[in-house]
Amino acid sequence: MKDITPQDLANNLKLAAKRDEQHRTIVRVKQHAIGGDQFTVIAGPCAVESREQVLEIAERVKAAGAHLLRGGAFKPLTFPYRNEKMFELGEEGLRYLREAGDRTGLPVVTEVMDVRLVGMVARYADMLQIGARNMQNFPLLEAVGKAGKPVLLKRHFGSSLRDWLGAAEYLLHHGNPSVVLCERGVAAPHTHSPTSRSIVDLQVVPAAQEYTHLPVIVDPSHATFRRRYVAPVARAALAIGADGVLLDVHPNPEQAAVDPLQALDYEAFGRLMQELEAIAPVVGRRLGSGVAARV
Amino acid sequence: MKDITPQDLANNLKLAAKRDEQHRTIVRVKQHAIGGDQFTVIAGPCAVESREQVLEIAERVKAAGAHLLRGGAFKPLTFPYRNEKMFELGEEGLRYLREAGDRTGLPVVTEVMDVRLVGMVARYADMLQIGARNMQNFPLLEAVGKAGKPVLLKRHFGSSLRDWLGAAEYLLHHGNPSVVLCERGVAAPHTHSPTSRSIVDLQVVPAAQEYTHLPVIVDPSHATFRRRYVAPVARAALAIGADGVLLDVHPNPEQAAVDPLQALDYEAFGRLMQELEAIAPVVGRRLGSGVAARV
Amino acid sequence: MKDITPQDLANNLKLAAKRDEQHRTIVRVKQHAIGGDQFTVIAGPCAVESREQVLEIAERVKAAGAHLLRGGAFKPLTFPYRNEKMFELGEEGLRYLREAGDRTGLPVVTEVMDVRLVGMVARYADMLQIGARNMQNFPLLEAVGKAGKPVLLKRHFGSSLRDWLGAAEYLLHHGNPSVVLCERGVAAPHTHSPTSRSIVDLQVVPAAQEYTHLPVIVDPSHATFRRRYVAPVARAALAIGADGVLLDVHPNPEQAAVDPLQALDYEAFGRLMQELEAIAPVVGRRLGSGVAARV
Amino acid sequence: MKDITPQDLANNLKLAAKRDEQHRTIVRVKQHAIGGDQFTVIAGPCAVESREQVLEIAERVKAAGAHLLRGGAFKPLTFPYRNEKMFELGEEGLRYLREAGDRTGLPVVTEVMDVRLVGMVARYADMLQIGARNMQNFPLLEAVGKAGKPVLLKRHFGSSLRDWLGAAEYLLHHGNPSVVLCERGVAAPHTHSPTSRSIVDLQVVPAAQEYTHLPVIVDPSHATFRRRYVAPVARAALAIGADGVLLDVHPNPEQAAVDPLQALDYEAFGRLMQELEAIAPVVGRRLGSGVAARV
Repeated sequence: MKDITPQDLANNLKLAAKRDEQHRTIVRVKQHAIGGDQFTVIAGPCAVESREQVLEIAERVKAAGAHLLRGGAFKPLTFPYRNEKMFELGEEGLRYLREAGDRTGLPVVTEVMDVRLVGMVARYADMLQIGARNMQNFPLLEAVGKAGKPVLLKRHFGSSLRDWLGAAEYLLHHGNPSVVLCERGVAAPHTHSPTSRSIVDLQVVPAAQEYTHLPVIVDPSHATFRRRYVAPVARAALAIGADGVLLDVHPNPEQAAVDPLQALDYEAFGRLMQELEAIAPVVGRRLGSGVAARV
Repeated sequence: MKDITPQDLANNLKLAAKRDEQHRTIVRVKQHAIGGDQFTVIAGPCAVESREQVLEIAERVKAAGAHLLRGGAFKPLTFPYRNEKMFELGEEGLRYLREAGDRTGLPVVTEVMDVRLVGMVARYADMLQIGARNMQNFPLLEAVGKAGKPVLLKRHFGSSLRDWLGAAEYLLHHGNPSVVLCERGVAAPHTHSPTSRSIVDLQVVPAAQEYTHLPVIVDPSHATFRRRYVAPVARAALAIGADGVLLDVHPNPEQAAVDPLQALDYEAFGRLMQELEAIAPVVGRRLGSGVAARV
Repeated sequence: MKDITPQDLANNLKLAAKRDEQHRTIVRVKQHAIGGDQFTVIAGPCAVESREQVLEIAERVKAAGAHLLRGGAFKPLTFPYRNEKMFELGEEGLRYLREAGDRTGLPVVTEVMDVRLVGMVARYADMLQIGARNMQNFPLLEAVGKAGKPVLLKRHFGSSLRDWLGAAEYLLHHGNPSVVLCERGVAAPHTHSPTSRSIVDLQVVPAAQEYTHLPVIVDPSHATFRRRYVAPVARAALAIGADGVLLDVHPNPEQAAVDPLQALDYEAFGRLMQELEAIAPVVGRRLGSGVAARV
Repeated sequence: MKDITPQDLANNLKLAAKRDEQHRTIVRVKQHAIGGDQFTVIAGPCAVESREQVLEIAERVKAAGAHLLRGGAFKPLTFPYRNEKMFELGEEGLRYLREAGDRTGLPVVTEVMDVRLVGMVARYADMLQIGARNMQNFPLLEAVGKAGKPVLLKRHFGSSLRDWLGAAEYLLHHGNPSVVLCERGVAAPHTHSPTSRSIVDLQVVPAAQEYTHLPVIVDPSHATFRRRYVAPVARAALAIGADGVLLDVHPNPEQAAVDPLQALDYEAFGRLMQELEAIAPVVGRRLGSGVAARV
């Protein structure tokens, strides 16, 4: 794994590198601003399962103080076979997600996996997500760079910081100034149990901030793959200086279509929001427009 | 990282899993057969730089005993900037590669990175390569699975064996029975020098053969990124039971457009071919139609 | 890397495994209690450089609210050569450390590397540290297990959680019930810069707490090896549920004898203590007897 | 993980670094020479289980062409509990090993784990092994450096090449010029099955040879932990340029006291010896005094 050199910063990360220590970008997604003193909470179902499901989740996470709604209509799976619970609603799912966003006023973020579908997905989404497995899918980066929507760029679980910033540079180079980085765990020789796939690399948050002006958030749900680690890692993400978290929330996690082991239920999500609210001022952050009523 | 379970073998790797200990697939690329007792050498430039370059290299590697010609017309780069030496000839490069293949009789293999270009690349190539960074680009896997050409599927440098076989299953599931796996190094905490990006995981060769009937080859050039390790790793790949190697060969490696540190020159390639010829019978292999004259 | 199985918990971790979800051990080091609702701050110089140095640092970290004093009299070095600044004071250093502890009332913790010196070091120290490199030095674990002093057991940078708990089991098995685990970074393929040797594995804190009743602390200084990451990682350690942190503090870090890149100066340490005080109640912790005046 | 710098080679690896490209050390263990054009096979039981066991194994591996006899009398275990099959014979085991060496004429190598037992173990052994877990046990390195016997230094499974060479430098610095390096697998995020603990890093063989004049061997048994990978990895070790292999051999591997999954039986060992004999001349090696009769 190559390290980031001064030459990389000058020649290869022309747009992603910080100009000076104070240089920090704020990324606007509709009315919401990611970065600065804002700590952003993006929440929602891993997979959009039905219209009812996503409308309900949207209402509940909004009531608890979330700022953006996430939901997957296209889900990358390790194997080509889906059982009856691994449904992928495609454009139908995007319509439900859009409706949920419109009803609650939450901007919506969703993954686009196929370069041929960037235009279609961009018609529904307020922010496009590049998944970890596509972090170095360069044609996709180019197309999303040109799509005119802010981007959430997940780090591949086998990627160095250098490669990740290189992927961000592609997006910036193709005309998109609104890029948010998202750490989601790295493959490691030190997994902690049979169900933990990776370890979350929280240290990459201050490391990324040392080199780039882009906001950096953390996905504790996919990074840890275990519900019991999600709230601790989310609190730690805030404490270490991240600009936000991306969280799987589901009314009945054990019944979730995808990744049932990692989603928070409403109660756990509400408790976590209150903890985040309490920690935020200590690290010079706020969680936003003061909502955060109990769900 | 999840391990391969008996359930995976039964449910998720329906086509990629071995039926029994003897089950081994031979993949035909035009007149050449990869697998069985054949040890296959695929050689050529990392990047097609000019018509003259690829024609000359093709003649020389053919004379030394190579079985297929490799050459990149589309090159994934970590950063979006190319200097004058990082040229990417695109379709023009494919034409030169095709011509070199036709003149020498060597089948040609080249990478396709963009799902929208699969048809075009397939018109020139005899075998399509999925690069490491696109190992889990599922739309690309589907398109290449349907393209009617044999596939060389590189392992991502952060991928488990399970994920790699899952990617192969996509290709098989979409109708392509002719898949060759290619190990090209894994990111590791144990790199050996400032210029070595990864370590080659030779143990994955017998490990893959334990689960799958597909041929497995090794790319010592990209795995080690250092010329001095290429011949030792190629010999070890043969000794450990791999079905072949993929090698960067360049008339003047220091002047190579891409990855100048790793290519072999003609003399080193010729020496390596002779070593491989000598080791092959010990492990029940042959290098082919007895060519291997000095280059 | 093997995972922890139910069989391990029953057969191999008889003493280290939790009996039930509520089982948590509090480790007493003289008057101080590590664990429970206490968040413990252990601070001091990486290496004891002189009597004056350690006396001054002890006064200052005590004034800022630290609970224990750390300091190395025996320093493991990668190479057998020490320059004039890498001094290792040995027993003389232990005397200074003891004096500093007695003057300030802070219990002292120091590393013992040599099984033949356990008795001698135990005469000076209130808590014995097993360094990362000796985590599986089984004769040393046995001797320290029998020495009658609480133990700080660092995790090797290449160790799984299973191996780490196995090492703790040795200490418990040889009669020592007072073991505190300390994460100090893992070798990873994802280092972030030329000067960062490892990444801190904060997720191991909740993972360890899932299996064991022993307190778990984090060493942000050695884990990150970079001053600018230390305070963020210390805050995150508290937020993720750790029972404490171990911090290098030095009056003039650039002049530190060992590891000059990672120590905090007094001002940075004082600021960090105030941040920790503010975060602690949110996660159900307190920093202690309310000292924490400005240094 | 730090890389090896020119400064390291000059200042920190004064004795371990190569003076020039041709500089290679041959390590004598009684009448046998490790290094040069010799490929050395060290074989024997993982653990000495009884006098009969080690005498029989010694005769059989000698007849098959092995050059040294290995056998453990002190076995490091992850947990402090031994079942009835995990016996550790201690000095009694050393006596049996010595007797087996004297009867067959094979020099014997065995591990010393405890700095207090170096003198005792050295009275029985012809070569002292430092186990992976003790690679940076500096008091042990010093004592073994002064013990006047050649040393087999295993690489820790979490160690960089730099740290490993640093450990060798300790041995050389304390007066022992006869050091052989032994790779035994690295912890990796890419394990291949539930029973494989690590991956063998064969690339470290040419990498080590780039920097040091010391011989480098490979331990396929402990590196792979699976019998079916042992012979392929041993062949690959020879092909990549290693100076030898260390192999677990047991008359009835499933009944072995320790590590029953990895030992070769006599027949498999005999077959492997013939394969190694056949490959050796291709890479400029020989297996020795032409023994290698069928076992």
